[in-house]
Amino acid sequence: MQNPNYTELCRTWQRLYRYNHAASILGWDRNAMMPAKGNDARAAAEAELQALIHRTRTDPKLAEQLRAAEGEALDDIERANLREMRRDWRDANALPEALVEAKSLAAAQCEHAWRTQRGNNDWNGFLDNFRDVVRLAREEAQLLADDSGLSRYDALMDRYEPGVRAADIDRIFGDVKQWLPQLIARVQAKQGNDRVTEPVGPFPAAAQRALNLEIMQQLGFDFDGGRLDESAHPFTGGVPEDVRLTTRYNEDSFVQSLMGTIHETGHARFEQNLPREWLSQPVGVARSYGIHESQSLSFEMQLARSREFTGFIAPLLTKHFGSQPAFDPDNLYRLLTRVKPGLIRVNADEVTYPAHIILRYEIERPLIEGEIEPEDIPALWDDKMQTLLGQDTRGNFKDGCLQDVHWSGGAFGYFPSYTLGAMYAAQWFAAIRRATPDLDARIAVGDFAPVFEWLKANVWSQASRWQTPELVQKASGEALNPAHFRAHLEKRYR
Amino acid sequence: MQNPNYTELCRTWQRLYRYNHAASILGWDRNAMMPAKGNDARAAAEAELQALIHRTRTDPKLAEQLRAAEGEALDDIERANLREMRRDWRDANALPEALVEAKSLAAAQCEHAWRTQRGNNDWNGFLDNFRDVVRLAREEAQLLADDSGLSRYDALMDRYEPGVRAADIDRIFGDVKQWLPQLIARVQAKQGNDRVTEPVGPFPAAAQRALNLEIMQQLGFDFDGGRLDESAHPFTGGVPEDVRLTTRYNEDSFVQSLMGTIHETGHARFEQNLPREWLSQPVGVARSYGIHESQSLSFEMQLARSREFTGFIAPLLTKHFGSQPAFDPDNLYRLLTRVKPGLIRVNADEVTYPAHIILRYEIERPLIEGEIEPEDIPALWDDKMQTLLGQDTRGNFKDGCLQDVHWSGGAFGYFPSYTLGAMYAAQWFAAIRRATPDLDARIAVGDFAPVFEWLKANVWSQASRWQTPELVQKASGEALNPAHFRAHLEKRYR
Repeated sequence: MQNPNYTELCRTWQRLYRYNHAASILGWDRNAMMPAKGNDARAAAEAELQALIHRTRTDPKLAEQLRAAEGEALDDIERANLREMRRDWRDANALPEALVEAKSLAAAQCEHAWRTQRGNNDWNGFLDNFRDVVRLAREEAQLLADDSGLSRYDALMDRYEPGVRAADIDRIFGDVKQWLPQLIARVQAKQGNDRVTEPVGPFPAAAQRALNLEIMQQLGFDFDGGRLDESAHPFTGGVPEDVRLTTRYNEDSFVQSLMGTIHETGHARFEQNLPREWLSQPVGVARSYGIHESQSLSFEMQLARSREFTGFIAPLLTKHFGSQPAFDPDNLYRLLTRVKPGLIRVNADEVTYPAHIILRYEIERPLIEGEIEPEDIPALWDDKMQTLLGQDTRGNFKDGCLQDVHWSGGAFGYFPSYTLGAMYAAQWFAAIRRATPDLDARIAVGDFAPVFEWLKANVWSQASRWQTPELVQKASGEALNPAHFRAHLEKRYR
Repeated sequence: MQNPNYTELCRTWQRLYRYNHAASILGWDRNAMMPAKGNDARAAAEAELQALIHRTRTDPKLAEQLRAAEGEALDDIERANLREMRRDWRDANALPEALVEAKSLAAAQCEHAWRTQRGNNDWNGFLDNFRDVVRLAREEAQLLADDSGLSRYDALMDRYEPGVRAADIDRIFGDVKQWLPQLIARVQAKQGNDRVTEPVGPFPAAAQRALNLEIMQQLGFDFDGGRLDESAHPFTGGVPEDVRLTTRYNEDSFVQSLMGTIHETGHARFEQNLPREWLSQPVGVARSYGIHESQSLSFEMQLARSREFTGFIAPLLTKHFGSQPAFDPDNLYRLLTRVKPGLIRVNADEVTYPAHIILRYEIERPLIEGEIEPEDIPALWDDKMQTLLGQDTRGNFKDGCLQDVHWSGGAFGYFPSYTLGAMYAAQWFAAIRRATPDLDARIAVGDFAPVFEWLKANVWSQASRWQTPELVQKASGEALNPAHFRAHLEKRYR
């Protein structure tokens, strides 16, 4: 047999793909379908599957097979697949089981307590648990760093954004900090004069669902390969062959559910258009969290909050909810592009959002590198919040450094993906615009084909063929360049 | 550690329980939720899980552990659990893999061809494949017989109805044949004078669903531990902690969906009331197909087709569908108890149904024992159909011996479970009636507690504590006695 080691590795990862299929559907079901009393048995079944997956990924024979496969006669795709197998294998094997367990326990305890401590504004109580989480995350980062030759923080970030380094982020965020605060101030001054008419509800859940389904159809979602359901926290789940989106309905407002569905549809189309012939192998998996987010933000921010798209969507709102003054396209556009600095990241608009991310990055990177300690966080937070967004957070831990779940769960290195995603999206749209000079006119009439064709050719079909920086270079002809994001914001909000 | 072998076995079966949880939810999802393009990936994931389950059940170390556990100090429940483990283990291990595969292939080929051959009335085409299925099923039966000391047919039937033997079935069905044909004739003569008003549709699916949910509630279904959804072929799926019922809606008639939902609710309450402390172990599994069917038929036939229940349900029909003459309780009762001999088993009423089963049993038993050959089936079918139901099936293979999927798939020994279930149900209700003399009056006012309490104490809570004949004896104070079934039919249809 040709390439016996590589072939055997493909079999193992195909088996993992199938186990993960089961785990993914069970997870979707837990969130979208399962009644309360199913929880304990489901948790046990999911844990059993995760244990099986872990045993499979840490099978001792993989080390030798991965080594031997390096010497086999592989083509480019196979070599990329082998690289991704090794990434996945390293992820599972770099850390001793005792550390994985200790970190998982500490994180679970810290996150559980955080759920009440946040409401009580109890930073000191949080700190007691959080010190352990940071200590173990640093140990983890050190072991990953030893294994990969990266710095500690880079080693953590590499799991979410392969190939992107803190040096890149420093350069990019450093640039953004030069112009973002002034831009925010200018937009606020300008929007101070805008009159925005609020839509008047109620908007029945059934009508919102019908609207969402129609928009998903227009955005190319394949309903033979996926579904839209409801869950408390909207997400994109399922498997590439059967993508399960969820949303939730608030009858007082349709905006959250509509924009959320458009956002998740971006994730879904990436999954639905991954190359079928690579599925079941690591090279066929969607590339990185930042690239995934670039798809949801291409749909939600670049496309759906444009003036052209609001013109397209206005008649659909009237069709599903009846006519009202707020559905005037210009008014809708003002509604969907309002900018207001605030304390809470998840409520932030597209302009102020990056400031929230920069702040977190500038705290978590030195924290992991050992340059600051957990007790230094509040003062840094207050200072950066004042500088970046002009907000006073002193003493308000609840809406400050206690607001996110990420750190309590020990997920350091993830935050940059959010803003990288927004920047990639702007860079994709700049490229699409170069390729299709009449893009806005086509969006205005509901012809989104230029967007979908470009994304399919340059992102969706590439799956994990390249590391993130190579993908960005090949797709857009240049490295990640925050000037596109800036130009997008300047144009839309100037 | 006390009982180390037994303890280790419990761990293995707990793992199997969790793998089966995953398999069961995936199966439910495939039928109730999955869009078309999800099929191939799902089939691969389900097959991978089944292979894993098979590897776990055939782990060579189990043989010695089962042997050693026999000598450990087990209590009664543990000993029953060990008995059920051995049954499950024997099921997976008694047959050589080559035979399992050959039979599975032959059955798949025969069943696949049957789907078109049935429509073409093509008995001879069917026979070509069916000979192989029978040959392999006899081999399988012989190996199971060698292993267990039972006869061939008993060995097959024991997988569905543990402890019940052909000698029991011969006695029971022999008795039924003495009185059933005359009863059918008498009921037909009597019902010839009945005037039945048909309900007039359409009955919107949403209203049918609301009615079904209300009836499920009244029948004690726990919606915190289960759901009602739709599928092409209604079934009870999921897991005991989270039971998933399905139905389908035909807007021309609500009867099929309503009675189907009541039927599945009987299955569901068994699952929802299995003793929680035994779940995850074989002793905690619902006992046998016949006993399971006795629960669905207790709900659908004994309870829901009674005159008292139609009185209870009539106002609910009016509530959900509006008023109409057909909803008069006496008319509803006539509608739900109409008897009409026909060719097709799945369309048969409660009185003629056993004749269909007896006919199949009297063919499949000698077929497996080698007393008749596949080519003898049509003549036997014609003859028995004439004797038992007065129907002429000569030359009509389509609506005769080609109508069921069971034989083409090699599932011999299953058919008796259907009628055993109906008989157990009649026997349970006779016992309930002895314990609760005013049962009918209580059913008439929607008080079903005496039924549920008796079933819970005597059947649901017993799970697989006993083999079927012991369970019947303990629950009702006597062995399976077809006189109760006869008395039930005589009373309802006299």
